[in-house]
Formats: sequence, C-alpha cells, structure tokens
Amino acid sequence: MADTFALITRSCALLRAAGPQTRERLRRSARLRHYHRGETIFLHQSRAQACHLVLEGWVKLYRIAPNGCEALLGIHTRGETFGLADGLRGAARSFGADAASDCDLLILPAPEIRAAAATDPGLQEALLHESFAATDGLLDQITDLKSCSALQRVAAFLCAHACVTEDGLRVILPFEKHLIAAYLGIKPESLSRALSRLKPLGVTISRDIVLIRDPEALDALLREEAAA
Amino acid sequence: MADTFALITRSCALLRAAGPQTRERLRRSARLRHYHRGETIFLHQSRAQACHLVLEGWVKLYRIAPNGCEALLGIHTRGETFGLADGLRGAARSFGADAASDCDLLILPAPEIRAAAATDPGLQEALLHESFAATDGLLDQITDLKSCSALQRVAAFLCAHACVTEDGLRVILPFEKHLIAAYLGIKPESLSRALSRLKPLGVTISRDIVLIRDPEALDALLREEAAA
Repeated sequence: MADTFALITRSCALLRAAGPQTRERLRRSARLRHYHRGETIFLHQSRAQACHLVLEGWVKLYRIAPNGCEALLGIHTRGETFGLADGLRGAARSFGADAASDCDLLILPAPEIRAAAATDPGLQEALLHESFAATDGLLDQITDLKSCSALQRVAAFLCAHACVTEDGLRVILPFEKHLIAAYLGIKPESLSRALSRLKPLGVTISRDIVLIRDPEALDALLREEAAA
Repeated sequence: MADTFALITRSCALLRAAGPQTRERLRRSARLRHYHRGETIFLHQSRAQACHLVLEGWVKLYRIAPNGCEALLGIHTRGETFGLADGLRGAARSFGADAASDCDLLILPAPEIRAAAATDPGLQEALLHESFAATDGLLDQITDLKSCSALQRVAAFLCAHACVTEDGLRVILPFEKHLIAAYLGIKPESLSRALSRLKPLGVTISRDIVLIRDPEALDALLREEAAA
C-alpha cells in the first residue's frame, strides 16, 4: 500500500498539500476498494463516515427528490474527490453514491481527515480550494440548466468530453446514455432526439463513440439564443 | 463604525469565528456601502478584489452564457456572504452581482481576508463551512432543476419563503416576478401560468403578497411525480 499511496498522492492535489506527517497518518488509515458497476457506495441520508477519491472508473452522485424522481447531481472520475463536505461535518449524506462503472476508490475515514485538517493548515487550505472547485462545477451546471436548450446542453457535454484525434474530435461516451440524459436534466428520448438533430452538423455516433467533424458548427450552435 | 461592526459580527458566522485580532483587522479595512436597486456591484469576469456580506436587501448573482442568455445563479439576502471563493483565490469573478433591491453591503477587501485566513485557523475553518453551505444550496437548486416540473418549482419556492400568520401561510415575494422566474429557470409566462394553476389549491396572490390557505395541498403536489 505504501507504494500505491505514493503514486496516488502524486495525482491528488489534496494529498499533495498535506504535510509528510499528515500524509503518513492518512496512508495508515486509508483503504482501497473495488466496486462493481451499479454497486452502492453509500446511501443518501446515511451517516458520512469517509471521504472518497476516485482512482479509476466513474461514480454517480444522486438524490431522491420528494416526488420520487432521482436527480443525478454529478458524475466523478479519476483524481476527483466526493463526499468531503458531509465527511468533514460528520453529517448525514446529502446525496447517495453508486458505481456508474466498475471503479476503484481510495476511502479515507472521516475522523482521520477531520483530525488531520485540524493540525495541518496546508491540508485545511487545500480542502477549502477543493470545496471552491466543487462550487465552480455546480455553478457551471446551473448556468447550463437555466440558460441552454436541451440540444445545446447535449452539444456542450460532447464538447466538454472531446479529445483531438487524427479524424477530428472524438468523444468516448463516459457512461450509459440514460445517465447522460439524467445528468443533463433531460429525458432519454430528448437525448436521442438531440443526437439526431446534431447529425446535419457533422456529429456521427456508433455505439459509445461520437465523432465531431465540424467543431465550429457546434460552437455556433452554443452561441445561438436558446430555443424552448 | 466600531459599534455597527460589533452588531454585524453578531449575525455573521464568519466574523464570529474570527479571533479578536482578526476581527479588529477586518473592521479597520471593511467598508459599508449602499447600492440602489439595479446598480452593478461587480461584473462577471472582473478581478475579485473584495468579499461581500449582505446587511439589508437582496443581491442577484448571474452569469451571461455563451448564447447571450443571462442565467440567474442565486439571490442573497441579509446575513449571507457572496463572492468569497473568487475573492480568496484572487481570481476573475465567475459571476456578476447586481442589487436586486436597494441594499446595504459590508465590503471586505480580498487581500485582508486572505491574510487573516492564513493566520487564523478559526476563520479558515469558518470559511470552509461557509463554502460547504454554499455547495448545499447549489445541490438543492440542481435537484429541483432536474427533478421537478415548473409548477413544482414554483410551489417549492413559495413554501421555502412562507411565514406563518393568523390567516395561514403568507409569502411576501422577495423580488420581482421576472427575477423569480429566472431563478427557477422558467420563462416569466410559465411562472404566471403556474401561479394560475395553484389557485384551485388555495393559493391567492395580490401584488407581491401570496397567501397559502392549504399547505397540505402544496405538499401533496410536491410529492407527485413530475409532469413534463
């Protein structure tokens, strides 16, 4: 575990910011765990006993609204933390977490993180910046939900996940289509409709691979006034 | 200013958490400022030079999306802070702020807050919890935007702002209807339609006063599966 932990530390801003003593303390209490796709990591309203770091795979965070609908709040992947706020406050979980794909997580017991933060100002500051980064992501989501049409949200999601390849931009859809729809706050059939409407703009899809042949057309679409 | 500041400190968790020396330092650099309704407090993308605390009135935070639409991210009122993350990071403003009504703000220069946080662990911890509280609010918003119909969002907004009076529950609409619509991510005409549809459920409106005669009917509505 010592070698693995050193490797993990390199890619995790939070662990990098901790002093050597804090890091050693966290290493001793940390656990690695593999989850199978669909497995529960923790339930909404359960007591927060740990903070999590994604080493591999995808994790979905969700909440069940009073009307019974599941709201997909976020999807986290490699290098990202989740559940820090509830863990540090020792509060009930304000959302549930499931493995959206097979995934590996580093689990840090909440009391250890709390104790480490209380004595390590570097870690405390890093936690603050981690929280600010979480806020940035949520503000981006709210902006898209309030100001963009369903079609624009789909286009923006594809642009955000695109990589440059020889054939143009390529997106490997990171998780299943019904999860993408839920994340974007649209119905699965609206996602299918949006993907069809993007074809004339040079977007082709086969299975979970999307090719974007004309990024400027998508860019122009994102700049159009949102239709209903 | 010394008396006023002592009074303000009592209602502000952030200032209460600061040690006496930090508080004195912040008092010396703080400024009070009155803004008229509609006045700009700061612009999106401008450099963050201060953190703000609302003493009286309403402030709206917004962002202009790439398609030119304004997304209303939040509305803040008495006792609430805004712009802390950008101020502490010395970053460009990730949103703009306008006075939604006449309002009084306490303005704390960002370099002073940064310097105070670096030497005062109590303030640092309070900043972390302030950031967590901001995240909670954003997660609530995202849940509503993704899982509730427009009608349910309006009903939830009314319930959230209702006070108990002799005649039942009363809501004094805190700002103009077009701002409420923008905050809820719906068009002004959808807000009007939703308010009409709430009449048979015992919700009556005259000017900016809303009476809720049957809170259980609203509660039942919030528990219904969301229609499109």
